[in-house]
Amino acid sequence: MIYLDNAATTWPKPPGVERAMIETLREKGANPGRGGHQMSLAAGRVIYQTRELIAQLFGIRDPSRVVFTLNCTEALNLALKGLLRPGDHAVISSMEHNSMVRPLKALSYNGVEYTVVPCNERGELALDDLERAIRPHTRLIALTHASNVAGTLLPIAEAGKVARRHGLTFLVDAAQTAGIFPINADELNIDLLAFPGHKGLYGPPGTGGLYIREGIPLVPLKHGGTGSSSGSVEQPETMPEMYESGTVNTVGIAGLGAGVSFVLQEGPEKIRQREESLLERLREGLAAIPGMKIYGPAAGSQAPTLAVNLGDTDSAEVAFLLDRVYQIGVRAGLHCAALAHRTLGTAKQGVVRFSLSYFNTREEIEATIQAMEELSKELL
Amino acid sequence: MIYLDNAATTWPKPPGVERAMIETLREKGANPGRGGHQMSLAAGRVIYQTRELIAQLFGIRDPSRVVFTLNCTEALNLALKGLLRPGDHAVISSMEHNSMVRPLKALSYNGVEYTVVPCNERGELALDDLERAIRPHTRLIALTHASNVAGTLLPIAEAGKVARRHGLTFLVDAAQTAGIFPINADELNIDLLAFPGHKGLYGPPGTGGLYIREGIPLVPLKHGGTGSSSGSVEQPETMPEMYESGTVNTVGIAGLGAGVSFVLQEGPEKIRQREESLLERLREGLAAIPGMKIYGPAAGSQAPTLAVNLGDTDSAEVAFLLDRVYQIGVRAGLHCAALAHRTLGTAKQGVVRFSLSYFNTREEIEATIQAMEELSKELL
Repeated sequence: MIYLDNAATTWPKPPGVERAMIETLREKGANPGRGGHQMSLAAGRVIYQTRELIAQLFGIRDPSRVVFTLNCTEALNLALKGLLRPGDHAVISSMEHNSMVRPLKALSYNGVEYTVVPCNERGELALDDLERAIRPHTRLIALTHASNVAGTLLPIAEAGKVARRHGLTFLVDAAQTAGIFPINADELNIDLLAFPGHKGLYGPPGTGGLYIREGIPLVPLKHGGTGSSSGSVEQPETMPEMYESGTVNTVGIAGLGAGVSFVLQEGPEKIRQREESLLERLREGLAAIPGMKIYGPAAGSQAPTLAVNLGDTDSAEVAFLLDRVYQIGVRAGLHCAALAHRTLGTAKQGVVRFSLSYFNTREEIEATIQAMEELSKELL
Repeated sequence: MIYLDNAATTWPKPPGVERAMIETLREKGANPGRGGHQMSLAAGRVIYQTRELIAQLFGIRDPSRVVFTLNCTEALNLALKGLLRPGDHAVISSMEHNSMVRPLKALSYNGVEYTVVPCNERGELALDDLERAIRPHTRLIALTHASNVAGTLLPIAEAGKVARRHGLTFLVDAAQTAGIFPINADELNIDLLAFPGHKGLYGPPGTGGLYIREGIPLVPLKHGGTGSSSGSVEQPETMPEMYESGTVNTVGIAGLGAGVSFVLQEGPEKIRQREESLLERLREGLAAIPGMKIYGPAAGSQAPTLAVNLGDTDSAEVAFLLDRVYQIGVRAGLHCAALAHRTLGTAKQGVVRFSLSYFNTREEIEATIQAMEELSKELL
């Protein structure tokens, strides 16, 4: 099949990912940090190496500030619920994923307030609007780096400066950009960086993480055994154990390490150029089809995700035909982002989303354009 | 090496586990429930099949009441933090793991109270003591099924009846018993059953879950995208999506399915008999060594875990020598169970813990006994 659902999870993974997972399962299958024996130590090294690679990728000086989670959603929950207390106010954009909005909605029942800054119909955020939303009790600015629906990039560099100027904590959701766009946490003034392991970092599902800048006080989402300070019923405050209670996903994290190694080896710049070139061809090819509606930014840089509709045809019908007739896997409907669809004006129709990875080919893009041409003739 | 640290995580895994993981990574690597295309549906089936197998193992009628988590610790956090509100009171035993005690300690700062019912020096819990700890505002009885330190079984069948009689919710931590002892959630009056995927169920790390009986109202630990009700910023209340925000560990859950299949195929009874027979031989062999202190129940049924000390020798020293000289991997020190060590009187010395799985052999046990004999001569 032609897999164009990489914004949900990338597939395939680089070959090293499977190898690293098998090796860990077979030879380093013990519980890291839970025993001093050789296999436990070997498992601990696997975890630490991946932590170091991620720190390297994101310009993080202290790898112990990188905490592993089940996925990016857990990382966002840890950041939001760990930071915000009753009376606090947060500012977000209208392009956020439900993994940002739903935790805030849940917190709002406990006295946390938030303001959704509206983006324009292309998903673009105006900095002035962002800054105007700041109130005296604002504690956090939280933005997605790129929309998971339309690929629109949000101005996180500028937003980070706004956050610094106002003394606010700055959280970035890198679900669609980690491994694709350069992210240097220090330079971008990012205090909390949530990322999935299984998308642009090419690790397996079951991996993700949160970078927590030193001095940002987060209450853990989960308390429990940490393999350290075992004699105390209080959660230890050492990093990263404080936020990694219970057995970590050693095998998955080994795979993630191989994925990040792949990204570092190929170079994010080369990855992005390839994806951008494929995306441009897709956009160009689809734009020439009569009745095609293309959402998101008009041109220029964006995440390798293109949201379209064929006239007024239900997006689910188009996706269904792409899958069954053409063996092309895409996602349709609403993409776990209620606010973003309202912003784009697609809350009813949804969108057909094509999302690319480094492993897609020019041939796949051409076949996709051709399929859409045929569907356009048939459906419109 | 001789791996006797199975209470931390079992190793090796049955061969089917690796096969299932590779197959899912290679052929079903899409995001389940996030798209209608073929590969996404295939991934969804993998998840559902594992849910069904777990439901079958634990006598759960509705598989959708089984929620996947990163590990057993997350399941316990979801159960405790999801259920208990300020003013509520919980009753636990003094043999609980830190994954039970630390969340409660954290909740206690928000007005939740809990009583720790002391067990005797073998880790045994008296039902009368448990019942006497119930107060008018008690909402929950929460017990580990077996101590992770000494293997002592707690009387969960009787405790479940006590909970029912008093109209209390009953939470069982099956970290050391899932896949080893028969657990029928209905028959045992269990409302919340937390289990790891990577111990007695022989799945990979990064897997675990919580069974939530219908009608038990839990606030989710994490909110976010669920692939359902995407148009709403409110968390959906459908099962299991309500508690599974973000991308699940598809590859790990595929492995877990193979692990549970293995358990169901071999039969928990056969697994337990084999482990009990190995444990009995280990106990008998170690008991004959001068200066050996053995903790936990005097005889009879227990989890396949034996806690010992060689005279007053530091448990970490014994474990170190077992590893370096004899290539035997065990855990020493305090086992993420502050209260349990105080109960057993081992808070200072810790214990050397031998924990077995179905894959250990008689030869390994004999070699371990011999190693301990030699260490006894050398150290005492």
